[in-house]
Amino acid sequence: MGLDYRVKCCPDGLVTDRRRRIRVLDCTIRDGGICNDWDFSPDQVRRTFDSLSEAGIDYMEIGYLTKDGLFDPAKVGPWKFCREDDLRAVISETDMRIAAMVDIGRIDLKAMRPASDSALDVLRIATYAHQMDEALEILDRALELGYETFMNVMAVSTLEPKAVDEFLKRLAVSGVHNVALVDSFGALFPYHVRYLIRKYQNYLGSEIGVGVHCHNNQQQAFANSIAAIDEGVDFVDATIHGMGRGAGNCPLELLLLYLDNPKYKVEPILDLVDEYAGLRDELRWGYHLPYAITGHYNLHPKTAIDRMATPERYQCRELFERLSKRLDEAAK
Amino acid sequence: MGLDYRVKCCPDGLVTDRRRRIRVLDCTIRDGGICNDWDFSPDQVRRTFDSLSEAGIDYMEIGYLTKDGLFDPAKVGPWKFCREDDLRAVISETDMRIAAMVDIGRIDLKAMRPASDSALDVLRIATYAHQMDEALEILDRALELGYETFMNVMAVSTLEPKAVDEFLKRLAVSGVHNVALVDSFGALFPYHVRYLIRKYQNYLGSEIGVGVHCHNNQQQAFANSIAAIDEGVDFVDATIHGMGRGAGNCPLELLLLYLDNPKYKVEPILDLVDEYAGLRDELRWGYHLPYAITGHYNLHPKTAIDRMATPERYQCRELFERLSKRLDEAAK
Repeated sequence: MGLDYRVKCCPDGLVTDRRRRIRVLDCTIRDGGICNDWDFSPDQVRRTFDSLSEAGIDYMEIGYLTKDGLFDPAKVGPWKFCREDDLRAVISETDMRIAAMVDIGRIDLKAMRPASDSALDVLRIATYAHQMDEALEILDRALELGYETFMNVMAVSTLEPKAVDEFLKRLAVSGVHNVALVDSFGALFPYHVRYLIRKYQNYLGSEIGVGVHCHNNQQQAFANSIAAIDEGVDFVDATIHGMGRGAGNCPLELLLLYLDNPKYKVEPILDLVDEYAGLRDELRWGYHLPYAITGHYNLHPKTAIDRMATPERYQCRELFERLSKRLDEAAK
Repeated sequence: MGLDYRVKCCPDGLVTDRRRRIRVLDCTIRDGGICNDWDFSPDQVRRTFDSLSEAGIDYMEIGYLTKDGLFDPAKVGPWKFCREDDLRAVISETDMRIAAMVDIGRIDLKAMRPASDSALDVLRIATYAHQMDEALEILDRALELGYETFMNVMAVSTLEPKAVDEFLKRLAVSGVHNVALVDSFGALFPYHVRYLIRKYQNYLGSEIGVGVHCHNNQQQAFANSIAAIDEGVDFVDATIHGMGRGAGNCPLELLLLYLDNPKYKVEPILDLVDEYAGLRDELRWGYHLPYAITGHYNLHPKTAIDRMATPERYQCRELFERLSKRLDEAAK
């Protein structure tokens, strides 16, 4: 009774079963938090935790692990820091693994707790390729402390092919458990994703999980995730209703319906979408023209996010022409 | 200086040049008109015409050709009827071909003008597979009168494979110029599209153009169009900012950026997006949960459109469970 039961015009067996081997990581509070400075109430995070857990989601990324003194707690919510007390107030017994993201330069390695003494099971290290030395230092410490680890190498779309090869070679022997292909700028199309996933799998071998983290600038977040699933990835990142920076991410509800795996229940997620949909009207993630333009030009969404905060948000011809000119000059 | 110039991590030449052989059909006024009962002012249609023409779009579908007496002109706009006077008031000299859609049972064959005496160059016949006799009758008349013709066989996702074969065999010898794969319910994924496009191409041969008309219920309208382009289709339907029934269509602006064909200029379309984006906030096409659910279940979007008109639009768990139950019972 899968999708092919419902779409009748195609013969049975057209889909491989690769869909059912996917682990799902929800990063709503972490990536969605970029939209609202992590201003989620403990109640909302608890409801989110409960529903994700009931749905059978494999990982919940609940925020960033950040050392003191970098951000003002009066201005950003607690999920930017992931203090043990805050985490323990919203989570309870579950099979779901709890993850936090770590940014380069924003963590105190000495203050890190062992996994056995933390509400966190998983650390995801977000790094640019040029920060790989620092990233591997954090990785070593995380492994030593007993965490499951992910390496999320951002903005891959801006690197030359050789630079991708280089960091993959280092990751292959790093001891990391999982590596995400991260399309930070929403610049990739499925043919890029297929090429890159094969390359990641080739360098990383069968012992390291490979997955994707996509952004929706050009309405490709879910489509790129599907392309990656076709290529046999091990995990996919998603968020409730696609909540995430700029154009947002692959919507968790669509992903679960697509995976068609009886281990997941979509119903609790539908309730969460109802809760988060109002936020979307207010915070305006999802497909909007400025995001399409920065995605097209393979640029950080910052310009588009700033533009979306103004009443002239859709007057984009000038923005398009200005960015085009800037890139042409840079290419000279 | 294509997309691969901007996405650096993939080698040159990864994309085939099939993108540049695509003809683009804009159906904003026709399919988008379903959102607002074709209540576009002549000025707006004229601006749309001018910008599409300036952008180099190949076809503009400007409405439905509908006989008198079926709809109250006080309740639906002029683009539901496509009277010659109304058309001539908004179009001028152009290389763009002007199309209207024809519904089965809603046209007076005897009253049809010759193409040489009409502002219309193209007729697109929308039909369900079971109405193929009537559709072919309209086709014969349209060919006799000198129109370029399209056959849009709707809701293909609900047919058994043999039923698809049957109508394709008839169309192959019908004299029709173009056939669109139409995903009326937004139920298809790229692997379905690839399978179906190959089938359409196989039955229809090299003399009949094959293209796609996609809906965005599951965020696949543009992705499915890309899959079809990969498979070598001849045309793609799109609308400004994706305006169209329910979740809407493939956004014209994204398609043009993707096609990367110097024959198209995206700048005039960016101005149109600014004009149409306000309508999107009001009319709520695009990705919304009720549309995802009817798309998932391969059902007509009507249920979702009705739901979107209520304040409880995102409370979808009950809707999801009710439709699931209904389909399970129907399958018994």
